[in-house]
Amino acid sequence: MIVPKPVRYEPRLGRWLLDRDTALAADPALGGVASWLRAELAPVTGGELLPGGPATPGAGPSGTISLALADLPPEAYRLTVDTGGARVEAGGPAGAFYGAQTLRQLLPPRAYRRAGASGGGAPLEVPAVLVEDAPRFAWRGCVLDVARHFLPKREVLRFIDLMALHKLNVLHLHLTDDQGWRVEIRRYPRLTEVGAWRRESQVGWDGPMDGRPHGGYYTQDDLREIVAYAADRHIMIVPEIDLPGHTQAAIAAHPELGNLDVPLEVRTTWGIGVNVLNVEDSTIAFFRDVLDEVLELFPGPYVCVGGDECRKDQWRASPAARRRIAELGLRDEDELQSWFIGQFADHLAARGRRLVGWDEILEGGLPPGAVVASWRGEHGAVAAARRGHDVITCPDTSVYLDYRQGPGPEEPAPFGPVLTLEDVHAFEPVPAELRGDPAAARVLGSQCAIWTELIDSPRRVDYMAFPRLAAFAETVWSPAGRDLPEFRERLAAHLPRLDAIGVEYRREGGPLPWQRLPGVPGRPEDAAAWQAKIDAWTRNIREP
Amino acid sequence: MIVPKPVRYEPRLGRWLLDRDTALAADPALGGVASWLRAELAPVTGGELLPGGPATPGAGPSGTISLALADLPPEAYRLTVDTGGARVEAGGPAGAFYGAQTLRQLLPPRAYRRAGASGGGAPLEVPAVLVEDAPRFAWRGCVLDVARHFLPKREVLRFIDLMALHKLNVLHLHLTDDQGWRVEIRRYPRLTEVGAWRRESQVGWDGPMDGRPHGGYYTQDDLREIVAYAADRHIMIVPEIDLPGHTQAAIAAHPELGNLDVPLEVRTTWGIGVNVLNVEDSTIAFFRDVLDEVLELFPGPYVCVGGDECRKDQWRASPAARRRIAELGLRDEDELQSWFIGQFADHLAARGRRLVGWDEILEGGLPPGAVVASWRGEHGAVAAARRGHDVITCPDTSVYLDYRQGPGPEEPAPFGPVLTLEDVHAFEPVPAELRGDPAAARVLGSQCAIWTELIDSPRRVDYMAFPRLAAFAETVWSPAGRDLPEFRERLAAHLPRLDAIGVEYRREGGPLPWQRLPGVPGRPEDAAAWQAKIDAWTRNIREP
Repeated sequence: MIVPKPVRYEPRLGRWLLDRDTALAADPALGGVASWLRAELAPVTGGELLPGGPATPGAGPSGTISLALADLPPEAYRLTVDTGGARVEAGGPAGAFYGAQTLRQLLPPRAYRRAGASGGGAPLEVPAVLVEDAPRFAWRGCVLDVARHFLPKREVLRFIDLMALHKLNVLHLHLTDDQGWRVEIRRYPRLTEVGAWRRESQVGWDGPMDGRPHGGYYTQDDLREIVAYAADRHIMIVPEIDLPGHTQAAIAAHPELGNLDVPLEVRTTWGIGVNVLNVEDSTIAFFRDVLDEVLELFPGPYVCVGGDECRKDQWRASPAARRRIAELGLRDEDELQSWFIGQFADHLAARGRRLVGWDEILEGGLPPGAVVASWRGEHGAVAAARRGHDVITCPDTSVYLDYRQGPGPEEPAPFGPVLTLEDVHAFEPVPAELRGDPAAARVLGSQCAIWTELIDSPRRVDYMAFPRLAAFAETVWSPAGRDLPEFRERLAAHLPRLDAIGVEYRREGGPLPWQRLPGVPGRPEDAAAWQAKIDAWTRNIREP
Repeated sequence: MIVPKPVRYEPRLGRWLLDRDTALAADPALGGVASWLRAELAPVTGGELLPGGPATPGAGPSGTISLALADLPPEAYRLTVDTGGARVEAGGPAGAFYGAQTLRQLLPPRAYRRAGASGGGAPLEVPAVLVEDAPRFAWRGCVLDVARHFLPKREVLRFIDLMALHKLNVLHLHLTDDQGWRVEIRRYPRLTEVGAWRRESQVGWDGPMDGRPHGGYYTQDDLREIVAYAADRHIMIVPEIDLPGHTQAAIAAHPELGNLDVPLEVRTTWGIGVNVLNVEDSTIAFFRDVLDEVLELFPGPYVCVGGDECRKDQWRASPAARRRIAELGLRDEDELQSWFIGQFADHLAARGRRLVGWDEILEGGLPPGAVVASWRGEHGAVAAARRGHDVITCPDTSVYLDYRQGPGPEEPAPFGPVLTLEDVHAFEPVPAELRGDPAAARVLGSQCAIWTELIDSPRRVDYMAFPRLAAFAETVWSPAGRDLPEFRERLAAHLPRLDAIGVEYRREGGPLPWQRLPGVPGRPEDAAAWQAKIDAWTRNIREP
């Protein structure tokens, strides 16, 4: 009953009882995994597992968990449980970590609690089994938008744990947007002093869910902690500094970055703003400085500079932009954006990093080596892959977990088209057009996304993300050709794990009474008006 | 720079470097503390401390932390740090735990982060020191109201960690009230099906901070986990089932418990409600059943049945209540309440537990053995102590952390009188009237309180609770005769620990922009109207 579904799962006869007298023995090369597993199990077994010699099964009075290196790919593992204990063989620390995660799923759900019953220590029953497993894709991601609504650090750490439970390995952290700048930049403190919060007014926002002043940001120490915590769980953080659109919070802090003579405030409405960066050398230098500090904090190879939803109205009206186009011999504003993004591609490449951008970066020409995240359907992924670029597929109508989960009026964040658990489970990361095409090898994997315009609390993140994130995990981890009824059966065993953790996921029947959107009409005749309101919210968020 | 201030703190010459090559050796009787400390330090040192033999200082390549039993009171400890490591001698596990907490405070603030810098493992500098310490009071508590606003389980666990950091040892969990019933009772599932949530309307509530449907509850497994987690940190949970007032959520679920023929809903306004339990035998039997399940979950010796703010209007109008008064030969409704509470005192006593009640239980006569929590000033504590009852002092104007922290209009929960950090630090748990009186020995200690009418998110709990909770901790832990400037100096070293944890405490200057209350007037001439609004909120919450 493992989620995501492993490649091979063979029940064997018998069972084993894990308790505080079980030993844990690990190859020193896998020491971090042993330390993580020991810390996770200690509260449940009522005591730390005994230290074991390296890979000596059967050594503890209650059997042994052994973690051993084997000749397997780095993320692959083999897990064997028999009456004497559990043995994880893995190609490297990541594989051992995934094997340990699978072992935890073999335990009863209470193994996910952070303390045992009073007195603790009742043994945990583990069925005998053979599991052989490896991920289908290398990039198994999730975008978390902490810009529209700030998520406190502890909630980001918890989300990392929940991703790790589902064997995801990339957290794409959307750190900046029109509505908030969430990363401390030492050189430009006004970015957070001014840009990390917005005033209460939500002009144009018609719903009852917001209207407070809102803000918060991560200090550089917070981000180092988040990066290290994620790394301990084999998750890479991809920071996103969204450019040249989605930058109103930065322009509010530094008006010289924008195109207007009038001061702007941090945006208090949703939707695609007209305010974008200017194309001055000083602005490019400013964001190179910003990226330099970001690179210090995030050691991973990928950095996202956005590139999405940049309205060109201000550039069309700007003499400076027109001059720049003429100087560079460009055709239009699309090529100007391409040139602008290219300034950062070079900067990142010179520092050994790769640029990730949303599929809009295809317009006007793609920087060499850029990775394209294709969200407006799959055409961007197909085009980029055929031009030899690595791609990540994330078509909004398949994997945007901020889209509502049912058609009912009571969904708490009633935005976008309906995207059910089944829809997400049916997602295929390789675009149909690429099947059989060697360019399909360019698909690194996929990422789902949690945009947070209407997701203004951690409890609502839970509701929107789960259990759909479990379905998404199957699409990137498990072999192709998944079976929905079989997934549902495993999910039924998985939900009690989420209950034990305290994840307030969406029930199959819809929201619990207190998860419902305020203002839902009680009378059926009001339903049309309600639907019109939902449509208006959708337009408000996704249209200019 | 330890908070709360220890009894004796003597800096010594030199320092010691703690890292992953430090050994941790503990007397097996203190094993739980060693396990806790190992888990807390592992993410920071980048690896688990080495196992050490029992109490053999100097055994690790980077020194040893040893935890040893000594002839001291159970909560007392002696901590010695020299260039070879740290030694905690304690009278029992609780003392060892407090010694370990003090040792953590000797480390740099980054020791409070949940992961180290990438690569991890930079040594932590510890100054040489001698600390001798023991608490002044046995009852060092905090009331957390999870009824008015539900706090997800993970937030309760986090709050327990924050209490433990400040050496508090009693979490009084206010589980039920007019506005919500938060504890699963197997025998009466409607208590949570109906009582665990309220609809969105907040009639009579004029502020912009609420208006959503709200709800949530703890399953029995959740509560067992909370109890065990707290016990691991030497914190006892005192559950409160508030009777006979503050029960509208229960009456909404079970109308037969009330005095009216019309159905009630879970209350959607604050204030002291008129709806109280009836005094039928069946109602007493119902709540004895409820308490029996509560006793299973909470093994501690104390159970609070509230008794506060019970309006007698419905009893005065009720033939059944008048009949009961006549039958029992009682004088009035106060004696009827006393009799009612007594029904549960007997029930608890027969099961080896002690009843705790708010000072209103003095009216009409106190059940034998009852512990009185005196919140309406100190007179209740004085009266009860002189009658030989154990008492807890918690005068609202000194320790109610839901009271606003400054007079400014921008405080996010502008309720009640102003209660500053300095006010809390100046609190003296033993009432002046009892000084020199042998009855002073009846003061078990004190508890601060976080009532949550206006505290509707974990972030706001942080703002209201900290740093005042640190000041409160000094009043119950540290020797009498504290010095405010000296506290401020230690607090300056303490706040970076809270920053590292991610506690969004109140800054000395007031709320950060995004912590401010919405709707604050910008123009000084609106201040009077604003003050009137604050006064109205105060009346709305605390007056009938």
